[in-house]
Amino acid sequence: MNERVGYIGLGLMGRPIALNLLHAGYPLAVYARRESVLRPLIDAGATSYSSPQALAAQCDVIITNVSDSCDVEEVVLGEQGVIHGARAGSVVIDMSTISPGVTRTAAQQLAEKGVEMLDAPVSGGTVGAETGTLSIMVGGKADVFERLRPLFEVIGKNITHVGGSGAGQVAKACNQLIVAQMMAAIGEAFVLAEASGVEPRKVRAALMGGFAGSRILEVHGRRMLEHDFLPGFKASLHQKDLHIVREAAAECEVTLPGTELVSGYLDALIDSGQGELDSAALVTVLEQRNGVMLNKTP
Amino acid sequence: MNERVGYIGLGLMGRPIALNLLHAGYPLAVYARRESVLRPLIDAGATSYSSPQALAAQCDVIITNVSDSCDVEEVVLGEQGVIHGARAGSVVIDMSTISPGVTRTAAQQLAEKGVEMLDAPVSGGTVGAETGTLSIMVGGKADVFERLRPLFEVIGKNITHVGGSGAGQVAKACNQLIVAQMMAAIGEAFVLAEASGVEPRKVRAALMGGFAGSRILEVHGRRMLEHDFLPGFKASLHQKDLHIVREAAAECEVTLPGTELVSGYLDALIDSGQGELDSAALVTVLEQRNGVMLNKTP
Repeated sequence: MNERVGYIGLGLMGRPIALNLLHAGYPLAVYARRESVLRPLIDAGATSYSSPQALAAQCDVIITNVSDSCDVEEVVLGEQGVIHGARAGSVVIDMSTISPGVTRTAAQQLAEKGVEMLDAPVSGGTVGAETGTLSIMVGGKADVFERLRPLFEVIGKNITHVGGSGAGQVAKACNQLIVAQMMAAIGEAFVLAEASGVEPRKVRAALMGGFAGSRILEVHGRRMLEHDFLPGFKASLHQKDLHIVREAAAECEVTLPGTELVSGYLDALIDSGQGELDSAALVTVLEQRNGVMLNKTP
Repeated sequence: MNERVGYIGLGLMGRPIALNLLHAGYPLAVYARRESVLRPLIDAGATSYSSPQALAAQCDVIITNVSDSCDVEEVVLGEQGVIHGARAGSVVIDMSTISPGVTRTAAQQLAEKGVEMLDAPVSGGTVGAETGTLSIMVGGKADVFERLRPLFEVIGKNITHVGGSGAGQVAKACNQLIVAQMMAAIGEAFVLAEASGVEPRKVRAALMGGFAGSRILEVHGRRMLEHDFLPGFKASLHQKDLHIVREAAAECEVTLPGTELVSGYLDALIDSGQGELDSAALVTVLEQRNGVMLNKTP
């Protein structure tokens, strides 16, 4: 029989993942502060609980999918947190993108109660969540991961056990710093082309098949050239993730100058009140600083 | 009947391209200073000439494939240069990676003699040259490009007419600045992972299928993790190309901070006497500055 799963954090990512688990036959318990968020899940057959603690007491697996490190601390370790209800032998899977350090602390405290924890941040956006094709980067004990592999396979396609507790978060941090720097590099290329009197969209086409090609050039390159900044993935969330990168870098005493550079672009974008745009909008900072506009509609 | 093609610059890239043209049935004239470079081409049926000028007088299309802007200036515009021999109606194709500004100057001077010029830098390395699968970024008149499309199709696969004279070089500059920054971003990710106690090779595996994935992560990511820096594409040549990027940026008054950053890594690598390594070796600069080693053989 499938594990009884509790889901906390039913936002843009959490809701479609929870529904996929429900449709795959996992009995589902849910918790949220707002009734409106719970309704579609309850209609689909989930049972709602009044606190993370109450939910955890009834579940074999508790998935958290919230916004930031402090949210995970609250729902897992807080006053009515998962830790106070979870039974020995149950597993917490945190699918949020948070600090590797906070992850390790939570895992340690849960371990003292006999509760396992996997960090399992994802990449692939709401489309990946809906279609069950997310990339999942997992940290924690290998045997716990293997036991829950069937559950992960409902949620995603490219599922990698990266290492011990926090390793999934480190991989996600790496993902986010690479994506941000790829976008900034593509932005520099387009700005150079435009300022040189060459059409950036032709440069994009010329580069797609070669070594400079990538899904970022394809998807976010197009966004940049059309100024199509409806998210997607919000700049404010990407900036939050780069904050996690910088924190993690500081903790292990490494310096990441490229990450610092693109963090500055996202800061400037957010300071100008545009944090709700897709993070590809960081190109507008490069445009403004260089007096160039890429989306010249004919 | 195929155009009679003259080829100047028979190095690692030029030789296989010239041989492909010969095998495709193009009568081939060649020029090189060194007999040893000419020999394999002459053995395959090419005719050698004593100067670029003498070669140009006998050809419909003259391809130059040399190292740098000053080499193009010499073989095209110099004392015994192509310009003094080329007939009105013939076409110079420069496949070197050089400055867009020098390209436009050469094209203008050739135009005064009724000689057309296309800039057609390539991407794809010696393997792409040998297999006829290069990406080719073409600048110059569209009708001249269309007329010579069959010749380009012998040489490459992803062939894009980007715009007027110099536009091919601008696209190549964009290619090179993006590739360099992607390598540096991947380097930062691996350094962060290693310093955090997470295996970078597992991070690479986790990221391959997602948005941070690319051929650079696949090919150069592996090079970085194995310290396999046999070129490939030499750091000294990548630095030369970034010099072209910076020149082009200065000419149109744009600032490219990410390009400046990675140029600094290549400078440091070359200053330490390692310019002959593949440019992926720029990761060693990040390793050294952070006291981290990626290629820990078990």
